[in-house]
Amino acid sequence: MNLTGQCASSNGTDSGVDAYNEPYRPQIHFSPSVNFMNDPNGMFRHPGNGLWHLYYQYNPTAPVAGNQHWGHATSEDLWTWTNHPPAISPDKPGDGIFTGSAVVDVNNSSGFFNASVAPEDRIVAIYTLNNARETQEIAFSTDGGYTFTKYANNPVIDLNTSQFRDPKVHWDVQTSHWVMTVSLPQVYEILFFSSPDLKSWTELSRFKVSGLLGFQYECPGLFQVPTVGGPNDGTKTWVLWISINPGAPLGGSAMQYFFGDWNGTTFTPHDNAARIIDFGKDFYAAQTFFEVGNANTTTAIGWASNWQYTNDVPTTPWRSTMTVARQLSLRYVRYNPMYSNYVLVQTPISTARIEVGSFLNISTPTSESHSIDFAGWDGAVDIQASFLLPGGSGVELRIGASGNQVLKIGAAFGDPVTVYVDRRFAGRSWADGNVFFADRYSGMVMPNKRDDGSTHFSLHVIVDRSLVEVFANDGEASSVSNVFWDNDALPEKLDIVLGNQQVIMESLVVQKLRGTWNCSV
Amino acid sequence: MNLTGQCASSNGTDSGVDAYNEPYRPQIHFSPSVNFMNDPNGMFRHPGNGLWHLYYQYNPTAPVAGNQHWGHATSEDLWTWTNHPPAISPDKPGDGIFTGSAVVDVNNSSGFFNASVAPEDRIVAIYTLNNARETQEIAFSTDGGYTFTKYANNPVIDLNTSQFRDPKVHWDVQTSHWVMTVSLPQVYEILFFSSPDLKSWTELSRFKVSGLLGFQYECPGLFQVPTVGGPNDGTKTWVLWISINPGAPLGGSAMQYFFGDWNGTTFTPHDNAARIIDFGKDFYAAQTFFEVGNANTTTAIGWASNWQYTNDVPTTPWRSTMTVARQLSLRYVRYNPMYSNYVLVQTPISTARIEVGSFLNISTPTSESHSIDFAGWDGAVDIQASFLLPGGSGVELRIGASGNQVLKIGAAFGDPVTVYVDRRFAGRSWADGNVFFADRYSGMVMPNKRDDGSTHFSLHVIVDRSLVEVFANDGEASSVSNVFWDNDALPEKLDIVLGNQQVIMESLVVQKLRGTWNCSV
Repeated sequence: MNLTGQCASSNGTDSGVDAYNEPYRPQIHFSPSVNFMNDPNGMFRHPGNGLWHLYYQYNPTAPVAGNQHWGHATSEDLWTWTNHPPAISPDKPGDGIFTGSAVVDVNNSSGFFNASVAPEDRIVAIYTLNNARETQEIAFSTDGGYTFTKYANNPVIDLNTSQFRDPKVHWDVQTSHWVMTVSLPQVYEILFFSSPDLKSWTELSRFKVSGLLGFQYECPGLFQVPTVGGPNDGTKTWVLWISINPGAPLGGSAMQYFFGDWNGTTFTPHDNAARIIDFGKDFYAAQTFFEVGNANTTTAIGWASNWQYTNDVPTTPWRSTMTVARQLSLRYVRYNPMYSNYVLVQTPISTARIEVGSFLNISTPTSESHSIDFAGWDGAVDIQASFLLPGGSGVELRIGASGNQVLKIGAAFGDPVTVYVDRRFAGRSWADGNVFFADRYSGMVMPNKRDDGSTHFSLHVIVDRSLVEVFANDGEASSVSNVFWDNDALPEKLDIVLGNQQVIMESLVVQKLRGTWNCSV
Repeated sequence: MNLTGQCASSNGTDSGVDAYNEPYRPQIHFSPSVNFMNDPNGMFRHPGNGLWHLYYQYNPTAPVAGNQHWGHATSEDLWTWTNHPPAISPDKPGDGIFTGSAVVDVNNSSGFFNASVAPEDRIVAIYTLNNARETQEIAFSTDGGYTFTKYANNPVIDLNTSQFRDPKVHWDVQTSHWVMTVSLPQVYEILFFSSPDLKSWTELSRFKVSGLLGFQYECPGLFQVPTVGGPNDGTKTWVLWISINPGAPLGGSAMQYFFGDWNGTTFTPHDNAARIIDFGKDFYAAQTFFEVGNANTTTAIGWASNWQYTNDVPTTPWRSTMTVARQLSLRYVRYNPMYSNYVLVQTPISTARIEVGSFLNISTPTSESHSIDFAGWDGAVDIQASFLLPGGSGVELRIGASGNQVLKIGAAFGDPVTVYVDRRFAGRSWADGNVFFADRYSGMVMPNKRDDGSTHFSLHVIVDRSLVEVFANDGEASSVSNVFWDNDALPEKLDIVLGNQQVIMESLVVQKLRGTWNCSV
């Protein structure tokens, strides 16, 4: 049994080992080999070897939610993942190891480590134990995050309530303390706690009843992001994001964010606006990686699903997929012709490591539509197109598959540019039967102004077997969409349809992305 | 030419007179006889004869937006409407008479009226003149609202901007002044002005950058509503609502609201939450009626469409429909098992006046599904069902039409109850071609607690030829949906499908609602 092999079963047994080649199996996105996954968890980057550790809410015994463990995988590049056995498991029936975070306790603030454990291997996980009530517990790892020992004096926080979860801990440089961001979901309060040692926690403040409420607040995160343009150009700004479920505007699960000031004690948003992170239905519970000493980038991964249908999607023997890793920033953009402010920008990490040639590469402006045949290609596809504005009605990318299936991703040009996803004609058979699997949604961005005064619009689309990610204007608007093609079809062609002769496509690159799950079964 | 006849052309000519019997023509909802309508406008109730005056954004010369006039119709009961010629028209090409409001100036504060005009006939309209810039203008009517004379010294407010519109005026009893609520759409500011005479206006305060922003803020309204339950039971509470377009969470147009305190100068919301009014795509620009001396109810009408597709819908020779009139209140409800607060409740006005018998009336609890044949009926249908909770998986109302079309309205029971609309299988032909016409969406409510400790859930559905309105738990959640059935079909059956044997339907009433447009052509 080789549980550290790249595609070894993620539930710690041999039985589920497969070739990651089933129908709908994502080729460049993380999915567990078998059974059910939800929130990404406890993510950190090892400060010694640079390895990225992804944990995730995992049911190792069934392809539906329940029996929550922390599944585990690692990656050198955030594309190629190696499965490991669950890292933290419940001690008794009825316990659930719910969402949490992990930190690298290099200075042994917790006292869990002795000199024999290298500073970069000193991992502490902070998670919610769910049973009749929810409490915050911690566990430590002396082997760099592969195995954990639960703290003997758990819980570390107990407010005697059944609804108190999803701790995300960061090292606060202003106070030289650990800070925990955690939710009282059903009273719409985000609590901030401080600790010198990860064991003893003192409440600092609460952020209450703001933005969209839905049924409850889950999976909060407080972090800094690089800030580009506008009055705070070149600085870092604090972002508080919150997942809401159910009751999102599009139904079910969604994420919103606030940006503002964190003074070590209190988060104060810059305004009272409610901003949604993703304009589709399949982005939830995103978390940032804990990194030691990286002040330049903030990297996150989200869960590419929605609680309204995640237990019913037609994938087997696993359910759920993570998004591609994306770097976060705030960018100062126009909201309309008269108002500018920051938006949270999501930029997928570079695909350079997994590019294996291009289907098409146009760098001369054109007003002609193009078609590309993907036949025979079973990896993923990366599409990047840029358009000169104003002028032209818009563009539609039509990703086709057998049976006249087509997934439409388009933009109607103007002020603003409306970006849309239409999955109505892709995977109709399964979608027909689920009343919550909405077919269409849209977001908006303003045309980007360049230094030379011209304006443009860009569209970046990553197409994998059962999901597509869309990033408009380099991540100012984005959406993740599940697509379960009929007849196990793979995308086999792309038509890039320019709306009229006034559309000027400045450039177009369509790349092949190799599957990253080259399993040896 | 009888322009006061019930179905006379709403553009002031004879040419468009019809029988209000075209495919998709709503039978109990207001629609203009011909051409394009958008926002309801300037609505007031005549304090003498009780007549309800509906004005609306209207293009009398084409079935698409543009050339904005104030269309006009009146009703004794808010169901049966009489069309009148446009009440306010632009003076020159390029001018648009944009959205505004009207008041009854019984005390002649404006000085527009002499003793020959009965106090209840003294109507002043306040609207936006749109041309190169947007200014606030007024006009007065000495005949109770049928014809208007523009004020000689217009504009009454000019901020020298192209984006400044949609004034809604109320009489403020705290200050004994008129108060105008008006939007600077693209800076996300709602401005409040005060005036003694409707001519001279002084800025009071601004409400800024709150809740969902979208591309811009439009059609603000500030009003009081009866408040039921909770700490403010029996009082009235101030509501500020704002329409946003484009950039709503579901794409295009939507409305949000805030509730709080108005002290005659400043609006202060009770919390920082963003609350959406309708969980579907087809509810926008709602406005309340101005009423003299009615402190008991607040009545509103909305526009049942979305700017993403309103110019393309397949109705002819008119486009767009108003919602049924609904009374507004705040009700103290559970948001989840741990949190209660107010929600804006929309209760459609009684259908008693237009009921002409029932298809089915069940008052004995049942766990059996039911089917009803509508064949031969060409009016509208009202469905009210109540369910005892907890217990049972849910219910689905399937409204069927020829060609195996079905419109699904359902509820998944639990905490919360998820209420959904699925128009994917109704009117597929037209919907297929519009990438913004989303098929599915959902809202949520908690089961209602009764005094005896039991909990229940109710669903009220009003089905007209090309739209359906859904009210859950007596209006705690609601949605309006356009449905353009294939082959000009009329709904011909209803299947009420109980999810399983544990569902207890306490009562079910399915009523026939007679068409209110009995035109004599």
